[in-house]
Amino acid sequence: MTRPRPLVPRPDPADAIGVVGEFGLIARVLARSGSARVAEVGPGDDAAVLRAPDGRVVACTDVLVEGRHFRRDWSSAEDVGHKAAAANLADVAAMGAVPTALLVGLACPADTPAVWLEGVADGMAAECAPFGAAVVGGDTVASAPDSSSVVLSVTALGDLGGRAPVRRDGARPGDVVAVAGRLGWSACGLAVLRRGFRAPAAAIAAHRRPTPPYAAGPAAADAGATSMCDTSDGLLADAGHLAADSGVGIDLDRATLAAFVTGPLPQVAAALGGDPLGWVLTGGEDHALVATFPPTAALPEGWTVIGRVHDDASGVEVDGVPAAQVAADLGEGAGHVHFG
Amino acid sequence: MTRPRPLVPRPDPADAIGVVGEFGLIARVLARSGSARVAEVGPGDDAAVLRAPDGRVVACTDVLVEGRHFRRDWSSAEDVGHKAAAANLADVAAMGAVPTALLVGLACPADTPAVWLEGVADGMAAECAPFGAAVVGGDTVASAPDSSSVVLSVTALGDLGGRAPVRRDGARPGDVVAVAGRLGWSACGLAVLRRGFRAPAAAIAAHRRPTPPYAAGPAAADAGATSMCDTSDGLLADAGHLAADSGVGIDLDRATLAAFVTGPLPQVAAALGGDPLGWVLTGGEDHALVATFPPTAALPEGWTVIGRVHDDASGVEVDGVPAAQVAADLGEGAGHVHFG
Repeated sequence: MTRPRPLVPRPDPADAIGVVGEFGLIARVLARSGSARVAEVGPGDDAAVLRAPDGRVVACTDVLVEGRHFRRDWSSAEDVGHKAAAANLADVAAMGAVPTALLVGLACPADTPAVWLEGVADGMAAECAPFGAAVVGGDTVASAPDSSSVVLSVTALGDLGGRAPVRRDGARPGDVVAVAGRLGWSACGLAVLRRGFRAPAAAIAAHRRPTPPYAAGPAAADAGATSMCDTSDGLLADAGHLAADSGVGIDLDRATLAAFVTGPLPQVAAALGGDPLGWVLTGGEDHALVATFPPTAALPEGWTVIGRVHDDASGVEVDGVPAAQVAADLGEGAGHVHFG
Repeated sequence: MTRPRPLVPRPDPADAIGVVGEFGLIARVLARSGSARVAEVGPGDDAAVLRAPDGRVVACTDVLVEGRHFRRDWSSAEDVGHKAAAANLADVAAMGAVPTALLVGLACPADTPAVWLEGVADGMAAECAPFGAAVVGGDTVASAPDSSSVVLSVTALGDLGGRAPVRRDGARPGDVVAVAGRLGWSACGLAVLRRGFRAPAAAIAAHRRPTPPYAAGPAAADAGATSMCDTSDGLLADAGHLAADSGVGIDLDRATLAAFVTGPLPQVAAALGGDPLGWVLTGGEDHALVATFPPTAALPEGWTVIGRVHDDASGVEVDGVPAAQVAADLGEGAGHVHFG
């Protein structure tokens, strides 16, 4: 379904979207988008009409900006589509829901190759397909006159299937803290790309196309998770959201987290110098899920206990050391800062 | 609720969003957003959870780019918020639905005053409030490194209240074509601003804050409208969408449309030179609604018959003259072209 293409397509002036035009572009992109199982009216009208089987709809928006969240010479169009979809689908999963549809707002320069946008559509379609989800609408406009960068704003919708949504504010003292998915792989891949390397492949791939543990979200909800969020800002920062919103403290176990230093992390850290635990604790964009469960809950497959909730609202600590201190000792910031 | 502010706030370095930071900014903006009647989980979690009373949800996305769809020296922050919301709420109305919630993806330079974004939030909240709708989520990120422009991608959700959605493809030969709302006022205001004038106020206001006839959408659905869309690209272009998607022809009545040359249009056209009918036929962004109804339908309040549907799929004509020719004779393009 996804044809391989070079990362930076050879520019064909006749294929620039300014030449193809809005309606030609929309037709070409929609032809690749698949169709959403819940769609009663799909793309091409003023709005889509989607069935909401649960009687409620889950909705979130995430923005990706070229030069900040991706680079067209580091990621293929398909990679960018996968990544933009994954960032949103993980937020849906983090509520305990299953994705149903995406809407895409896109600002791009008039010389953007239409074939590049087809690649983005392919990547999104592939990321959505396992759920029967698809892009059901959106808008494509020219970038600001002062910009030659792509801005991609994706809205994901999802269905709870009768589950109670798992919020960030329900953690209770005595709960266990657990994580599902990879930690630090995307940050490791970004470190590799920044130094100009293109290997190891596993690290690069993790940065280009995160693989969030989507099924772990609804499974956690079914297992009684008391709070949950995705780790788009990094584990320490996102566990901090659960602690702050729930009015509790979280103590993480360093030895358990050290076991997440796997795959390409040890090798890359040794080559570049530095402690790979920094990526595990502060690296965002893997979109792992972090949740709290009652101490008696049977954790679903894929979840690993990494700490405990206590009643002293002192934020997040690792073996009793405050998160900011731990991050500083590892040479990392405390998390992703969007305007830093 | 909306405090008046100068169009371009005096820059206060301490109030730049790069200084205020993402979480400070989110807190300030959300404090102004009101709450959506359908929200079970509002902003601040991974995703919002919204009731969908109809069992279906209507969803659409529209992108506004600074320098293309608005200018910060021509429109206040509140104006931009009103306009971004209105463009999306009109699409919801054009399906026969009532808006319930907005999600906002925002890319803006780090030196953007936080007070400017508060103004945008105020404008959106005010435009949504009559429906019990509100902003329920979103994402704010720094603009691309090469850009000092704001990009605003808004997704609107709506509820059909049991109505069948009114699509673009249901017009039948013999139907009447009707319009609700103003035509050409926004284009007239833009023409005034482009010449450096700041009057007449009615034209400027129409460009800054369109006033779509929201209630006319569900009313048209209840009255049996066979097709409908909003006129964001201009009447000729958008009637063309109904004709093309329905496989019919549409003939509009020039004398009836001439009666839409009202308000500031005659005066401004006389001052600037040109035929104000050009704005009526090709001006976008007023977000009037155009629809077709069975010939026996009783048209709801606010709808005016402007033409007829026939079975010759010849696109849109005005008194038998093809739309492109009519537009060219009036010195206007055939509609809004996004990459022109």
